[in-house]
Amino acid sequence: MNPRLYFDWNASAPLRAEAHAAVLSAIDLAGNPSSVHAEGRAARRIIEQARENVAALVGSEARNVVFTSGGSEANMLALWPATDGATAVPARLLVSAIEHPSVLAGGRFAASEVERVPVTPRGEIDLTSLADRLAKGAKGSLVSVMLANNETGIIQPVSKVAALAHQTGALLHVDAVQGPGRISCDINQLGADLLTVSGHKIGAPKGVGALVRRSSETPWPASIVKGGGQERGARAGTENVIGIAGFGAAARAAREEWETDRERLVVLRERLEAGLRASTPEVVIFGSGAERLPNTILFALPGTKAETAVIAFDLGGVAVSSGAACSSGKVQPSHVLAAMGVAPDLARAAVRVSFGRTTTESEVDLFVSAWNNVSASLLKQQRVAAA
Amino acid sequence: MNPRLYFDWNASAPLRAEAHAAVLSAIDLAGNPSSVHAEGRAARRIIEQARENVAALVGSEARNVVFTSGGSEANMLALWPATDGATAVPARLLVSAIEHPSVLAGGRFAASEVERVPVTPRGEIDLTSLADRLAKGAKGSLVSVMLANNETGIIQPVSKVAALAHQTGALLHVDAVQGPGRISCDINQLGADLLTVSGHKIGAPKGVGALVRRSSETPWPASIVKGGGQERGARAGTENVIGIAGFGAAARAAREEWETDRERLVVLRERLEAGLRASTPEVVIFGSGAERLPNTILFALPGTKAETAVIAFDLGGVAVSSGAACSSGKVQPSHVLAAMGVAPDLARAAVRVSFGRTTTESEVDLFVSAWNNVSASLLKQQRVAAA
Repeated sequence: MNPRLYFDWNASAPLRAEAHAAVLSAIDLAGNPSSVHAEGRAARRIIEQARENVAALVGSEARNVVFTSGGSEANMLALWPATDGATAVPARLLVSAIEHPSVLAGGRFAASEVERVPVTPRGEIDLTSLADRLAKGAKGSLVSVMLANNETGIIQPVSKVAALAHQTGALLHVDAVQGPGRISCDINQLGADLLTVSGHKIGAPKGVGALVRRSSETPWPASIVKGGGQERGARAGTENVIGIAGFGAAARAAREEWETDRERLVVLRERLEAGLRASTPEVVIFGSGAERLPNTILFALPGTKAETAVIAFDLGGVAVSSGAACSSGKVQPSHVLAAMGVAPDLARAAVRVSFGRTTTESEVDLFVSAWNNVSASLLKQQRVAAA
Repeated sequence: MNPRLYFDWNASAPLRAEAHAAVLSAIDLAGNPSSVHAEGRAARRIIEQARENVAALVGSEARNVVFTSGGSEANMLALWPATDGATAVPARLLVSAIEHPSVLAGGRFAASEVERVPVTPRGEIDLTSLADRLAKGAKGSLVSVMLANNETGIIQPVSKVAALAHQTGALLHVDAVQGPGRISCDINQLGADLLTVSGHKIGAPKGVGALVRRSSETPWPASIVKGGGQERGARAGTENVIGIAGFGAAARAAREEWETDRERLVVLRERLEAGLRASTPEVVIFGSGAERLPNTILFALPGTKAETAVIAFDLGGVAVSSGAACSSGKVQPSHVLAAMGVAPDLARAAVRVSFGRTTTESEVDLFVSAWNNVSASLLKQQRVAAA
């Protein structure tokens, strides 16, 4: 039996060897990181080393990193009404229409305070529309725009968003979970005030993430989990020591390797897309005209169903997804493609392929072979259904 | 050099071998538990097995367990205004004065909606006062009382609290993090509607916990982390798969072993207390007249400082604590002892010793030897300061 082909890195990336080792080095530390004794201090050191590495991954400083249970919690923490009662300025949240569900949910803003900014047919936030809305609104807005879309891989014009936001005194939060290890994610270059990163998207264990602020002058959201004084009061609760250890190690490895691996990933992406087109010329590759992550392809074979394709791939030994993992189970078409103006029927056929640093050329070729079988089966079903 | 003596299990317990093995068995699963492919389903199975074991630990069913990032998040989730806007009944929260900071913070209740119920000098919630407050209030109250205090180990009369609460239509949340593996924690016997458990207090990794409800008819709090549909919509975010795996294994082991180990722990506690009294007859052991956890001793040598004792113990190779780990750094006297009416000077001397299933009689004897040295040093400093 052939080994499985894992092409769902945007849902969760395989654990890096460095993260594995870091988890093992931390797993037998009994101490609570808040305890003052030697056992507690040993656990504390693990966390603070990881904090340095996560900060460095995005060009910030350790004191500006708050560890969370993942990207969703970091987004929830970031999206808080920015103004306090004293200023009497109504707060509002502007989000792009293609954000992750954890951002679209609006965090702690009331639903009436959240405005969705449209995207262009290319899949990028509509900067003109954003500028209009920023100009119309009162001060105290928070803008949240992702660095790269998890479904299409399309990279958003975050620096331009930052310039527009800052011109009107707004703050910018960037959900960057799909960025590190793939593209540049410097918080200063991006101009983000707050930035979300996730461990398991870069080869750390699942269940750990961080919210990072650009500088110690950036206002810090009120905590979601209250109680103890952990994370300098920004997030109570005993820390996930082994998860954080793995996150730090993965962050360090991702920072050191991504630039050298980027070109190889682009070549693999082009090879895979060429294979898709050769096999099924009618295939639609979303965002192919836009700047995209080097590891992500969202494609559709018109007239087919993504769920059927995903199951057929799985039976054939290949893990892919239809849209985001966290909304799986739903058979609604992708809100991302809907926002780009893609017809629901075509959107329902969309299959996401995502890969990473361990993916090889021969795995890409095996994937294309699998697609030959899957697409033939899909087209046959389509003909039967039409007959 | 002697091996260290770890006597701070209430801050964080050493990892159980079963949990270690479970973490390792889950660590290389790449799949996102929300993904439909084989890799995703493998991760999902780990979580659902753990859910069964955590449910069984407290006598509930898997469908009534929501995994969180720990006890603090579970408490935060549990403490939500119980009534919805439609009923127009003012919600309020009644908590005992000796709760953990994550409960005293009041969750999502406004500060004005939180009332503290006093405790008796024995360290148990004052049931008369609770009954008075319940009788006076409107419907829709939520009561939160811990199963056993983390500092004193004093077990609270939770079943009686439940009866009082339910007579007035109130709901009861029980922070049970110090209970499992030490005393009975059946959610039905306790009469709790919602119950918090923590992984790292029972030998799982740090950074995982759960909120459990008694039945599927118990109202479920609105989620804190919004976004994806994980945990049946009660808690968004990709799950901490390795932490949950460890939690499930630790829960199973704790459930199978605690009754057989209980008597041994009581004997160790008595031996340790006898050693303290023999060494320093003036020692005060808090709650010695009350029903306590078999593994916890909070004691004070009048006229000394707990911080000094903890440091002296640490230098002597022994890990103990002054109060709860999560409020370490603060040198305020314990709110728990203050609520019991203990004078601040005596409370400032309070040292907590907590141990567990791997602790041996000879370790207890080594602890008492260490106390001989530490107490002699403390008393010498005291004499010098007084001179």
